Amino acid sequence: MKNSKNTAPSRAGFKNDSFLRACRKEPTDYTPIWMMRQAGRYLPEYQALREKYDFETLYKTPELAVEITLQPVRRFDVDAAIIFSDILVVPEAMGLFLKFHEGKGPVFSQPVRSERDIRKLRRLNVAEDLDFVLKAIEWTVEELSGDIPLIGFSGSPWTLFAYMVEGQGSRTFRWAKSMLYEEPERAHRLLELLSDQIAAYLSAQIAAGAGAVQIFDSWGGLLSPDLYREFSLAYLKKVIRKLEKGNQPVIVFAKGVHGGIAGLAESGADCLSVDWTVHLGHARRLTGGKVALQGNLDPAVLYARPEVIRKEAENVLRAFGKGNGHVFNLGHGLLPDVDPDHVKILVDFVREASRPFHETP
Amino acid sequence: MKNSKNTAPSRAGFKNDSFLRACRKEPTDYTPIWMMRQAGRYLPEYQALREKYDFETLYKTPELAVEITLQPVRRFDVDAAIIFSDILVVPEAMGLFLKFHEGKGPVFSQPVRSERDIRKLRRLNVAEDLDFVLKAIEWTVEELSGDIPLIGFSGSPWTLFAYMVEGQGSRTFRWAKSMLYEEPERAHRLLELLSDQIAAYLSAQIAAGAGAVQIFDSWGGLLSPDLYREFSLAYLKKVIRKLEKGNQPVIVFAKGVHGGIAGLAESGADCLSVDWTVHLGHARRLTGGKVALQGNLDPAVLYARPEVIRKEAENVLRAFGKGNGHVFNLGHGLLPDVDPDHVKILVDFVREASRPFHETP
Repeated sequence: MKNSKNTAPSRAGFKNDSFLRACRKEPTDYTPIWMMRQAGRYLPEYQALREKYDFETLYKTPELAVEITLQPVRRFDVDAAIIFSDILVVPEAMGLFLKFHEGKGPVFSQPVRSERDIRKLRRLNVAEDLDFVLKAIEWTVEELSGDIPLIGFSGSPWTLFAYMVEGQGSRTFRWAKSMLYEEPERAHRLLELLSDQIAAYLSAQIAAGAGAVQIFDSWGGLLSPDLYREFSLAYLKKVIRKLEKGNQPVIVFAKGVHGGIAGLAESGADCLSVDWTVHLGHARRLTGGKVALQGNLDPAVLYARPEVIRKEAENVLRAFGKGNGHVFNLGHGLLPDVDPDHVKILVDFVREASRPFHETP
Repeated sequence: MKNSKNTAPSRAGFKNDSFLRACRKEPTDYTPIWMMRQAGRYLPEYQALREKYDFETLYKTPELAVEITLQPVRRFDVDAAIIFSDILVVPEAMGLFLKFHEGKGPVFSQPVRSERDIRKLRRLNVAEDLDFVLKAIEWTVEELSGDIPLIGFSGSPWTLFAYMVEGQGSRTFRWAKSMLYEEPERAHRLLELLSDQIAAYLSAQIAAGAGAVQIFDSWGGLLSPDLYREFSLAYLKKVIRKLEKGNQPVIVFAKGVHGGIAGLAESGADCLSVDWTVHLGHARRLTGGKVALQGNLDPAVLYARPEVIRKEAENVLRAFGKGNGHVFNLGHGLLPDVDPDHVKILVDFVREASRPFHETP
């Protein structure tokens, strides 16, 4: 399978290809659903593994990553799986030393700020450096045996840049933003380098069997519209242009990037994932049918009782309206203290309640 | 002065009324400027006071609050002062016990979640309970002796609600949002109560001499467009409608509320303060001249060297374009580790560079 670059056999036909069809704006019988962070902390079966292994071991051990990826697929009738991994595997493989601190999140002890820091970064040899991700993808695809597609993913150039320059999450991202304002050419060099690595990484995930890829621009919302266009959107386009792939859809999730939605529709992405602060009908008008839309139930709705979950999910379906090109998702990742039974209620409801939105008159 | 409800003498005519005129979309010679958090941690003279007193003492002691309010006015040629205070004085005066933790921020030890919690809240007697704020305003107005107006402020109903129900700042605001979804009627009761208290508080600030008031909806960006309309915008309108005031302008700063800008233009506010992720020209088109606009330089620009600060400030002026109704400000508060000399560069630049935007041909 490793040698069959863009034509892994399991992708030829999925038993359930509704997610891929919706990404391509093709007709489906219902609105397909998966959820960001559907594999993770809110599941007791994940917690059971987490008690035995630290987070890093979980995503760096293909057997464990496969198991965690499949946990939500066993529980819920989701239309896609997403590989359990972390966006920071790329900077780490480029030579940054990463440490996960309880409560504080991931920290790079040596942030990338000077020309010398950039020169020291390694170019990826994806097959070697990120072998554990590619193996996890191949094995998950085998386990799924053509039932539903598996989504691969990466951080966007700007989002990885923000982490690498800052060294950690931050309220202000002082260092990352200052480089954009003060040393724009240095920033462009680092973003260029990151775009090449990310394109190679996503291409390898597709070659390993990923049926679609999602690019997380989690920190896009930190930037003014002008900065977003120059330092994030331009490199999203570059990544997408450089992807070696067949017809696997590309999804971009740009959290908090409301002013850039129209521009993102021209990025080459097949589907835009939007957060819950944007009305889906508004996003649909803004993007004029150029892309499919994914989203966007407020993740906090899953704290509420069943009838509230159903009502709010119905509101999301109505906001998009009738027609093709909607992938149901949350507007951000599943929160870690949500009741898995509530997730099941959501998935089952969307499957049935979305059918009238796909009937042809 | 305490008895002259809406006609404090110093407001009759300011030596520099450019800020008030811009809020009312009247012609000015240049674009007036002040900055959110212009009184605060980045100033060494503030730090000198902070070494002697804790934060609470600073804003609860009128003499100290006056001094801190005036510090930036002495350093910079700003067109308005803003009273040094905290938005949590209202919930505290309603009976919640507030504690400031270093690093963690303010925490209410008894969050408001049940009907009983709501019933226990005190109705404000502003003149008594928030005497220290009103005194600070009166004395600052005297000190300013008609040079520039002083801005009073409050948190919005939703933003105070979010703090009170959650008990502290949060990434997800699980409790506050769950009450909106699960117990909307309870949420409405608390928001109604808060609106009355906030209207009374802002009216008292105006009676004490505030020449304008700003309502901070700092957590508005947590809500979906539907929730924003129902639980934040509706109560902003109520507060503004209930204000006892003369022609003092009302500014609303709704951080992260991009989808609600058109709705906010109908809130009764004279001026909308927008964060730096919104293009000012876009906001101007959306609001169609119904309100003045305030903003919106990315606060991180002030980390950069002088020529970058000037270039980015020029971009903000250009984004709004020619004409009246623009108050220059940052898109969020001044960051605590900014160099005060950079602030001076910004203020001086905006004063001069904005003149061509106000010339009548």
